[in-house]
Amino acid sequence: MSRTDGRTAEQLRPVTIERGWSKHAEGSVLVSFGDTRVLCTASVTEGVPRWRKGSGEGWVTAEYSMLPRATNTRGDRESVKGRIGGRTHEISRLIGRSLRAVVDYKALGENTVVLDCDVLQADGGTRTAAITGAYVALADAITWAQGRKLVKAGRQPLTGTVSAVSVGIVGGAPLLDLCYEEDVRADTDMNVVCTGDGRFVEVQGTAEAEPFARDELNALLDLAAAGCTDLAAIQRAALDQHREK
Amino acid sequence: MSRTDGRTAEQLRPVTIERGWSKHAEGSVLVSFGDTRVLCTASVTEGVPRWRKGSGEGWVTAEYSMLPRATNTRGDRESVKGRIGGRTHEISRLIGRSLRAVVDYKALGENTVVLDCDVLQADGGTRTAAITGAYVALADAITWAQGRKLVKAGRQPLTGTVSAVSVGIVGGAPLLDLCYEEDVRADTDMNVVCTGDGRFVEVQGTAEAEPFARDELNALLDLAAAGCTDLAAIQRAALDQHREK
Amino acid sequence: MSRTDGRTAEQLRPVTIERGWSKHAEGSVLVSFGDTRVLCTASVTEGVPRWRKGSGEGWVTAEYSMLPRATNTRGDRESVKGRIGGRTHEISRLIGRSLRAVVDYKALGENTVVLDCDVLQADGGTRTAAITGAYVALADAITWAQGRKLVKAGRQPLTGTVSAVSVGIVGGAPLLDLCYEEDVRADTDMNVVCTGDGRFVEVQGTAEAEPFARDELNALLDLAAAGCTDLAAIQRAALDQHREK
Amino acid sequence: MSRTDGRTAEQLRPVTIERGWSKHAEGSVLVSFGDTRVLCTASVTEGVPRWRKGSGEGWVTAEYSMLPRATNTRGDRESVKGRIGGRTHEISRLIGRSLRAVVDYKALGENTVVLDCDVLQADGGTRTAAITGAYVALADAITWAQGRKLVKAGRQPLTGTVSAVSVGIVGGAPLLDLCYEEDVRADTDMNVVCTGDGRFVEVQGTAEAEPFARDELNALLDLAAAGCTDLAAIQRAALDQHREK
Amino acid sequence: MSRTDGRTAEQLRPVTIERGWSKHAEGSVLVSFGDTRVLCTASVTEGVPRWRKGSGEGWVTAEYSMLPRATNTRGDRESVKGRIGGRTHEISRLIGRSLRAVVDYKALGENTVVLDCDVLQADGGTRTAAITGAYVALADAITWAQGRKLVKAGRQPLTGTVSAVSVGIVGGAPLLDLCYEEDVRADTDMNVVCTGDGRFVEVQGTAEAEPFARDELNALLDLAAAGCTDLAAIQRAALDQHREK
Amino acid sequence: MSRTDGRTAEQLRPVTIERGWSKHAEGSVLVSFGDTRVLCTASVTEGVPRWRKGSGEGWVTAEYSMLPRATNTRGDRESVKGRIGGRTHEISRLIGRSLRAVVDYKALGENTVVLDCDVLQADGGTRTAAITGAYVALADAITWAQGRKLVKAGRQPLTGTVSAVSVGIVGGAPLLDLCYEEDVRADTDMNVVCTGDGRFVEVQGTAEAEPFARDELNALLDLAAAGCTDLAAIQRAALDQHREK
Repeated sequence: MSRTDGRTAEQLRPVTIERGWSKHAEGSVLVSFGDTRVLCTASVTEGVPRWRKGSGEGWVTAEYSMLPRATNTRGDRESVKGRIGGRTHEISRLIGRSLRAVVDYKALGENTVVLDCDVLQADGGTRTAAITGAYVALADAITWAQGRKLVKAGRQPLTGTVSAVSVGIVGGAPLLDLCYEEDVRADTDMNVVCTGDGRFVEVQGTAEAEPFARDELNALLDLAAAGCTDLAAIQRAALDQHREK
Repeated sequence: MSRTDGRTAEQLRPVTIERGWSKHAEGSVLVSFGDTRVLCTASVTEGVPRWRKGSGEGWVTAEYSMLPRATNTRGDRESVKGRIGGRTHEISRLIGRSLRAVVDYKALGENTVVLDCDVLQADGGTRTAAITGAYVALADAITWAQGRKLVKAGRQPLTGTVSAVSVGIVGGAPLLDLCYEEDVRADTDMNVVCTGDGRFVEVQGTAEAEPFARDELNALLDLAAAGCTDLAAIQRAALDQHREK
Repeated sequence: MSRTDGRTAEQLRPVTIERGWSKHAEGSVLVSFGDTRVLCTASVTEGVPRWRKGSGEGWVTAEYSMLPRATNTRGDRESVKGRIGGRTHEISRLIGRSLRAVVDYKALGENTVVLDCDVLQADGGTRTAAITGAYVALADAITWAQGRKLVKAGRQPLTGTVSAVSVGIVGGAPLLDLCYEEDVRADTDMNVVCTGDGRFVEVQGTAEAEPFARDELNALLDLAAAGCTDLAAIQRAALDQHREK
Repeated sequence: MSRTDGRTAEQLRPVTIERGWSKHAEGSVLVSFGDTRVLCTASVTEGVPRWRKGSGEGWVTAEYSMLPRATNTRGDRESVKGRIGGRTHEISRLIGRSLRAVVDYKALGENTVVLDCDVLQADGGTRTAAITGAYVALADAITWAQGRKLVKAGRQPLTGTVSAVSVGIVGGAPLLDLCYEEDVRADTDMNVVCTGDGRFVEVQGTAEAEPFARDELNALLDLAAAGCTDLAAIQRAALDQHREK
Repeated sequence: MSRTDGRTAEQLRPVTIERGWSKHAEGSVLVSFGDTRVLCTASVTEGVPRWRKGSGEGWVTAEYSMLPRATNTRGDRESVKGRIGGRTHEISRLIGRSLRAVVDYKALGENTVVLDCDVLQADGGTRTAAITGAYVALADAITWAQGRKLVKAGRQPLTGTVSAVSVGIVGGAPLLDLCYEEDVRADTDMNVVCTGDGRFVEVQGTAEAEPFARDELNALLDLAAAGCTDLAAIQRAALDQHREK
Repeated sequence: MSRTDGRTAEQLRPVTIERGWSKHAEGSVLVSFGDTRVLCTASVTEGVPRWRKGSGEGWVTAEYSMLPRATNTRGDRESVKGRIGGRTHEISRLIGRSLRAVVDYKALGENTVVLDCDVLQADGGTRTAAITGAYVALADAITWAQGRKLVKAGRQPLTGTVSAVSVGIVGGAPLLDLCYEEDVRADTDMNVVCTGDGRFVEVQGTAEAEPFARDELNALLDLAAAGCTDLAAIQRAALDQHREK
């Protein structure tokens, strides 16, 4: 079976990671998974939320949002509606948890990093692109904080790398990194977050139409693990480039 | 390793399903998984939300909430705070999706069923208890609707059964149906929703501390699938009892 | 005139008070007035709201809410609507004032007790059942606090007992403890809160249809005062039972 | 015992009712009970809320609010806080119920009258002043609607008059129409709404400090009934004046 | 061209400034520009918002609101809608900025003055009437604060006076101080805020229909500057009157 | 006096207008005024708001927002705060009014265009960049609608062009197109919106420190008018480029 855009089943869309996109943020990345484009900024502030004060530990959190016309039809702004929807909440929490999986709070010290992931254009996989890009922005922000001596030398606040990809069963076939059109037709849809060493941070699989069998689940996990390995290499390459700012 | 309450690793807590708990609702169940108690009511109304009118198809949705003192420390009411938190949103969505996986919208006709799952007492696994109980309330509500001829004879609106259970890795060991104390200590926490025929509807696994390896994931899935089989039998037994009301 | 359920005009519905319903709360009661069932939990916390700090005095407050399907037709959740309705506000305030009428703030010391009254099933008289049950939960919570030495020995924080009942004129006849069906047909509806020694804490009478004359008002007050005397005896009996927890 | 302002126990403060205060509203009154000043406007619109459409019956409702500096200390605006407080809700509901007690919905036809009662200056008794003034504004608005043939000739939409007054026990003595200073010191505080023919529409008595005995309640009801008779006469006098507009 | 009310193009409506309207506020003015009536109260509190603490400087802010029936058609209350509209926000900010233009924060010391401008009746120019009246209320409040020694002697917290007026092009002609009927027909609408010495604090011109040319803009600025000079004289006269309270 | 970035007083920052930035929107522009970058999307929908139905006329409106880290310090999201701030409201309204000044509603027919202006990076002048970019997005959207025959041939919905620029007095000198650093130091700050033929749509001048004199105002208007002429040329050039999409 060939995919709309000619990819094979186990192929990622073209992924680009543009560091230093914003002049203000301590870390900032414009990440693209095909036509999906997410601006990820990392903001470092000294201090931690009240419930964590005096612990000597830092905090990392995330907020996800979509511009109203990131999608094919305009959506109402959540600020105008006066409340955040369930989907936004869910994704913000997922991004935060995923990044915290590779953070050593003690090494970070009492500093807070907020990752803002704003979807400028959506074409499927916005949450996985957000996690993948936010990791790079976080890494840059921590380097910045180390340069300012906000974070002590010695122990590394990042214990590994983290990336994410979507997989799904479309027309009976397991596919990697669904674009919007594939996502809509998927029977099962799964988002997988892995560390660079191939372990799992989050596995969220949902039967959109038919419930799925254990061997389908296994096939999806295989695809996703391989995809995350590729993404980890792309993240590494991006971070290896000298960033001038 | 023995568990606090003496269970084996693959054993459920005592599960009870009390049907017809409320005199008003078309279906109502007080479900207990050990000390976790959730009141699930199913409300049937003719008609569907606007975006679905004229489709000939029904709708099933769910709302989850905790009483303020269901937990060890009192939580503020979301009505008083004026907004619903991310966790509540996330669980309400999960329950709705889980039940919709076994609903034939055409057979349901243009009727809506709302499942309200209110946690009266929490001791871990509130979302999985809610799904398991809500299924039974939904089944009773559909029987009621068939009795009133709201749902046409012939085709069954329920295409199967659905139940859910939590699993996790605690102190290195995979355990079924975590109570609160175990949940707090878990390295990995997973909620699994299965149909009665052993397929998966939702798999949500999260590394709370260490990322987890593929074989750990497999062990958890095995445990959960077996647990859901047990729950399906308990649901069947409950529904086989004559309900007088 | 005989009532739907065969009661005489001055008879209460069967009233039950089940103490220790919740394993977490410092005091908890499931109270029933016929088919009306309210879960009342009392949560004790050290400290008082900011405006009372340093006064040496405690605080008691209450929040009332209905589960969405406590009633015959499902109501929208106030958390989903994002605002608390006037009726909920009004009843929460009434419960709080009623309980505070028998509290000696100095004896309570700088502790706060929050009474949560959640209506699990409604059949008229939910606010009066809530007050009657909440008093017992409050008494248990204070005993708990005395056991923990949060409250000093010597002076009793409760200066008396408090209970409440509804009365109304239905079809020309004054009736005690209206069920929903009677409440709907009432010309005048009155909620009366009394202390155990027969004095009044709150009197709230409303002409739903025709304005009422002074002698009707007097007849209702007589009925209510007698009903509260009965309720006080039931509260006393409940509190006299040994509670094991 | 003599009162701060030299009144006897059963004496009202100077009450003035200034009709036609606003050039836009169909009925408008600036009512004063001593230093308490409330602007009451009645707005007539054709049609009724959705739940009443096609019934042939009208609707009357009320909204109460205080300007932020109506009181001695500035209060935050409820619009700025983004939510209406319990007290505001409670009073708005009371005013609405009180006026509806003298409205014949059939005679009003499918028209809605909204009474806005905005407290410009507060010195105790704002809700009772609001009811008393709003009745006059309502009467003017109905006359206006009759002039415009919105309301059919023949049957009178107003079946009587309604007014309200506060009473309380201060320093052991029952007093009529409490000013703020007396209100603060009252052991018991009661608001009574009566029709012009001396029957009761609402009785709301609250023990602020000590619970009250039956004979105290009786004394307060006597005072209030007499006070409402005086207010009815003042309303009648105001309405008898020719209003030019 | 003659105006509806017979005024010439450069004539203000009758302007009255009634000081000491409220018994509670430190400064209070009922200002009228023709049928537009705004109640302006100034509330003084010791201390400043958190972000200004320790600066030794004071703060002045304003809130504008309309009573629901101030206008020809009833508007919904913003407190009921649960959010403040853009127009209200805009005007509140304008009033605050205008007054702050003549305040010496150092001389005011760490005190806050809140100006509440509530429109009781609207007939065009409510924001300009509010600014003009609020200035007088502010002046009275500062005199009060000086009397109480809250504000130190020596340096004057008010560095000048401020007033405002609307101008517009109606039917091709530039007119001063538009009433509602003129405002609706205006092609261009401009609000101008000036100090007593003839300089500009705010200029806000908007093309409601046709864009305006530079010479039209100049004509409007001339009219407005002259109008503000007249208003400054009226303010001075009001403040020169002995105020007894 | 030379400016930080070497510009002369009457020089714009480098302005770029990148059309077709988004694949979904009917018109989309990434506009830059120096480091200020705003994404402007135009969304066309058939139909108009309810209050305009049946009029045969279209509607154009705008929403402005800033990403949380568009600025030097991270700001809280308005969606998280649950309410839109006054500044956001004010700017959204300004953009909408500015664009409507060049729209012929009749020619547009019953279609709605929503302009979303999201600031990706802020360095002063975000509202003027937004207006200037949104005009181009609107022009593209209307061309799109004409291509789809949503808008009838013949009459042009756009009656002209519109652009905007900020001006201010900094250190005594009138400057064009202030960057953030200049904006902060400005005594007077003015935003001017002009049509391509040199007339004014909006003039909003504010004394941030000292009130300004008439001749200063004149100097600012001269600068702004010239700046808008330059911007109109840049808009024209952008629209003349063939846009491939």
